Amino acid sequence: MITPLIILVRPQMGENIGAAARAMLNFGLTGLRLVEPRDGWPNPRAGAMAAGASEVIDKARVFPSVADAVADCTHVLATTARHRGLFVPVHEPPEAAAVLQGHAQNGHRTAVLFGGEKSGLSTDDLSYADAILTVPVNPGFSSLNLAQAVLLVAYEWSRAVASGQRFDSPYDETPAPREAVEGMIVHLFEALDEAGYFYPEAKRPTLERNLRTMLTHAKLTEAETRLFRGVVRQLSRRHKAGT
Amino acid sequence: MITPLIILVRPQMGENIGAAARAMLNFGLTGLRLVEPRDGWPNPRAGAMAAGASEVIDKARVFPSVADAVADCTHVLATTARHRGLFVPVHEPPEAAAVLQGHAQNGHRTAVLFGGEKSGLSTDDLSYADAILTVPVNPGFSSLNLAQAVLLVAYEWSRAVASGQRFDSPYDETPAPREAVEGMIVHLFEALDEAGYFYPEAKRPTLERNLRTMLTHAKLTEAETRLFRGVVRQLSRRHKAGT
Repeated sequence: MITPLIILVRPQMGENIGAAARAMLNFGLTGLRLVEPRDGWPNPRAGAMAAGASEVIDKARVFPSVADAVADCTHVLATTARHRGLFVPVHEPPEAAAVLQGHAQNGHRTAVLFGGEKSGLSTDDLSYADAILTVPVNPGFSSLNLAQAVLLVAYEWSRAVASGQRFDSPYDETPAPREAVEGMIVHLFEALDEAGYFYPEAKRPTLERNLRTMLTHAKLTEAETRLFRGVVRQLSRRHKAGT
Repeated sequence: MITPLIILVRPQMGENIGAAARAMLNFGLTGLRLVEPRDGWPNPRAGAMAAGASEVIDKARVFPSVADAVADCTHVLATTARHRGLFVPVHEPPEAAAVLQGHAQNGHRTAVLFGGEKSGLSTDDLSYADAILTVPVNPGFSSLNLAQAVLLVAYEWSRAVASGQRFDSPYDETPAPREAVEGMIVHLFEALDEAGYFYPEAKRPTLERNLRTMLTHAKLTEAETRLFRGVVRQLSRRHKAGT
């Protein structure tokens, strides 16, 4: 699958380019392009910041203009907070990821443009976009930096890729079969009976019901039912020895 | 609506605490708690980094332990890449956000735990969690930093809020606040200690952790914690009388 290109337009700090490369690789994106990086290219600060993501930095390509950078792409999104009345679709990250997936699955190259730290994308830059990608931040405090914006886009891309996956159970392990739970409950009831817990006798049905409810919705593993029975056994043993 | 608390456990760099505060406020989260911040609190570096997010930093509260930090919470998620066979649900960020929303819409206080920069959350920390929150990163390159992990969680929370969807709390009744659960657990530990359960002594940490995990994810109501304590009390009483 052709993964989307991340295109940084007039980025300023090498550190931020490196951080963006890391954010990309965290979610499986490797194609980085740069348009007019302020401090030239290669940039040692970017390499240092990218650390383990040097494969992204080393393969990064530099272009003199947005037009050149997107030349081989079929679908381009531009990241901006301001829409400025552009008549293009506006996507939030999940929809954007779905759009990018749709293209990628058809073998088309896509790209997402990100503006520089200070002023973002120009109206001219936006004119290369098929659609706007906007992250809905707190209107009272919006301070996403370049790498964080890249992170959210890469994250949603990887989610879109993974969505083909099937999640059956939220549990890592298998809950105990009912008979193990019931055996544990009966064990507890017997111990409590010996300890004189069900008193007065009239309260027994309610107490038993409440205990069973509690121990059933606890959804223990089979190992945990044994753990619990060990607790009951130990608490009872000494008491029996004593009486 | 009660928004989820972000709890940083043993954070090291003040700068990262500040960056986490910014990430939170970008998506409308304001409740920050710190457990044993390495460099004490307040931390000027955190304040400087937080810049416009000083409202989050200024209101941050410090706690001596995870148990104290989650005492007034009813549902706690722990962020970790490693599940280590814990028998609790594992959520990716969108599901986690839906779960948090469900609780918040019912007026319950929730929290998300994040470990420190070096070693993350300990196995003991995880035993306070109702569920694991894990971000599915590129297995070949996983370098999310603290603020980025907070950013993704806050982002998904704000998406869940914006969706306008009503998320059902999975529980019919109100789960007990953590301090009631912890009181019950400590009560049990004391009773087990007297009964000689923690033998050999070397096994105590593992036994305590497994019991805490079991009794945490059991999601008891406050009434059930009292019911359980009655069980422990009764099982212990006769034994004490006898010895």
